[in-house]
Amino acid sequence: MRALPPGSTIGILGGGQLGRMLVLAAARLGFKCHIYTDVDGPACQVAAATTLGAFDDLEKVRAFAAAVDVVTYEFENVPLTAAAATDAIKPVRPGPKALQYSQDRLDEKLFVSRLGIPVAPFAAVEAPADFDAAIRAVGTPAILKTRRLGYDGKGQVPIATAADLPAAFDGIGRAPATLEGFVTFAFEVSVLIVRGLDTQVRFYDIPVNRHRDGILRVSTVPSDLPERHRDRAREIAEGIASALDYVGVLAVEMFYVGGDASEPLIVNEFAPRVHNSGHWTIDACAVSQFENHIRAVAGWPLGITERHSNAEMHNLIGAEVDEWPRLVADPAACVHLYGKGEARPGRKMGHVTWIKPR
Amino acid sequence: MRALPPGSTIGILGGGQLGRMLVLAAARLGFKCHIYTDVDGPACQVAAATTLGAFDDLEKVRAFAAAVDVVTYEFENVPLTAAAATDAIKPVRPGPKALQYSQDRLDEKLFVSRLGIPVAPFAAVEAPADFDAAIRAVGTPAILKTRRLGYDGKGQVPIATAADLPAAFDGIGRAPATLEGFVTFAFEVSVLIVRGLDTQVRFYDIPVNRHRDGILRVSTVPSDLPERHRDRAREIAEGIASALDYVGVLAVEMFYVGGDASEPLIVNEFAPRVHNSGHWTIDACAVSQFENHIRAVAGWPLGITERHSNAEMHNLIGAEVDEWPRLVADPAACVHLYGKGEARPGRKMGHVTWIKPR
Repeated sequence: MRALPPGSTIGILGGGQLGRMLVLAAARLGFKCHIYTDVDGPACQVAAATTLGAFDDLEKVRAFAAAVDVVTYEFENVPLTAAAATDAIKPVRPGPKALQYSQDRLDEKLFVSRLGIPVAPFAAVEAPADFDAAIRAVGTPAILKTRRLGYDGKGQVPIATAADLPAAFDGIGRAPATLEGFVTFAFEVSVLIVRGLDTQVRFYDIPVNRHRDGILRVSTVPSDLPERHRDRAREIAEGIASALDYVGVLAVEMFYVGGDASEPLIVNEFAPRVHNSGHWTIDACAVSQFENHIRAVAGWPLGITERHSNAEMHNLIGAEVDEWPRLVADPAACVHLYGKGEARPGRKMGHVTWIKPR
Repeated sequence: MRALPPGSTIGILGGGQLGRMLVLAAARLGFKCHIYTDVDGPACQVAAATTLGAFDDLEKVRAFAAAVDVVTYEFENVPLTAAAATDAIKPVRPGPKALQYSQDRLDEKLFVSRLGIPVAPFAAVEAPADFDAAIRAVGTPAILKTRRLGYDGKGQVPIATAADLPAAFDGIGRAPATLEGFVTFAFEVSVLIVRGLDTQVRFYDIPVNRHRDGILRVSTVPSDLPERHRDRAREIAEGIASALDYVGVLAVEMFYVGGDASEPLIVNEFAPRVHNSGHWTIDACAVSQFENHIRAVAGWPLGITERHSNAEMHNLIGAEVDEWPRLVADPAACVHLYGKGEARPGRKMGHVTWIKPR
């Protein structure tokens, strides 16, 4: 394994706030970053170079790959053709395998459950002919989700009874979908695992996550997850990371259904990238999820993942960012703003982390 | 006082590692940065824009000022004409007054001693005719220093006896100089004070600093400076900051001569900018010196300056940076590399901070 020397250039597919925070972490380590994005985004303001191009412009994608030393991505919907074109020229880390599974809810569920890891009941819905079998397999209430391109609750419709399914299917444009059973759970947690090029793994402390309208609002460490279940949570995440030959930070969201269940944790989904529920690591850890992702991608040893402080991270969604004057006046708040223009409803504009001594 | 809204552009005169770390801190808060520099430097890799130009190209300097919302600087040898040209268009913070005094050792000494703050014995040396009076005033051993453009021990020649002075004066090119008496001291500390646009002040913990060959090597917090002397140290720094109508981070280096002296602290010099002895604040504080400088310059409330951890910062000078593979494998080390090309002797290439629970 050859570690990329400082001064090398890390290519990042995607130009959003995750890319921006990756660039800032890479800069600490002496790396330059080159962003490839189809829209000018917040990462471009801090990158050494930006290529603005469509992801299906493979000529441009290849020129980008030739100009950098290694490639990573900051969103899981990078077209596989673009990732493959890049990987033929410079290594893409985490590999295309992680992208492939995470881009399709059905493939992801099948992949995770084949590893012997519990997931919510699910069934494929390709056409109205699948409705009856899906309802029989999953029951109601349930939730219909497009297989591809969903995020932050988009492309999801709740189903109270079987009769709701036809309208819900029309509502998602009759796109290939999964029907997923609701899971009754105590709270949601996420495991942030980082896996090095040498297969070494480290874990950040497991946050508890609260959502509203399908969007993460608050992540807190420590969580109330009992210690024995933390071991199980880490084991699950490591199982997924190994099966994907993963390099970098992987986030695995899990429902904690309670201590009496034989399987207390059910995997909801995974994200093959740095994750919103790990933003607190910037302020509460010596080495953040962003730096550890960069370290892994560059073939460096991983940094420590222990937290020096307890933390509570709140997202600033849409117009909430207008409260910045109040937030920056709070001496206990670590304020992070993403440099985005318009504060559209539902848009992640920044986050605030409050840290406290452990 | 109007706070600059996020999304505004902060202009920075100078493109070195201090500028780079200012850019990274500004990006956290949603600001864009525009660098003005006469040589392509490490700050340019992360800035949203760079103007490459000479500091005496006032036309270019004015166009830069017009393109940004506020201006700061990352080195104290910005020509006053450039600072004044900028200030006429957009506010320069800290003001030109701090630049003026810190650019000239004699003016600085006179300014500080007029405030009733102890400094080492000093005398002006403009020409050989001044030698005798200077030696009489200062004694030997002493050190001859150019009044202008010295840093990291450059432009300084030690004097053992009066007979050394002519050769020393030739050695500094017969430039206007000060002769300064040696001070016998226990250790050197620096006060890192940040002063807001609203004149509010905050202090970071006071590090003890160790130098070698005139270059800072190690800064450690906490220091052994007794509590009552810390109060005096802060009072001195605040006196200087107020007299300069200062905005931003100011570093005041002081010799601690020991507890029995009536004035236990003697000011060595001040730097009107973020300072190498404050780099540990990135890893040991929720809000670093860089972020607080940006907050002050932007007219924002200051962030907390308390440290959550103890810290020891080591500079990586010249070829020491080649040890990066060992350093990044040390799980307790927070490694910072500046993205500079050639590791010339004496060049600051990066730093490492080890943090420990308080």
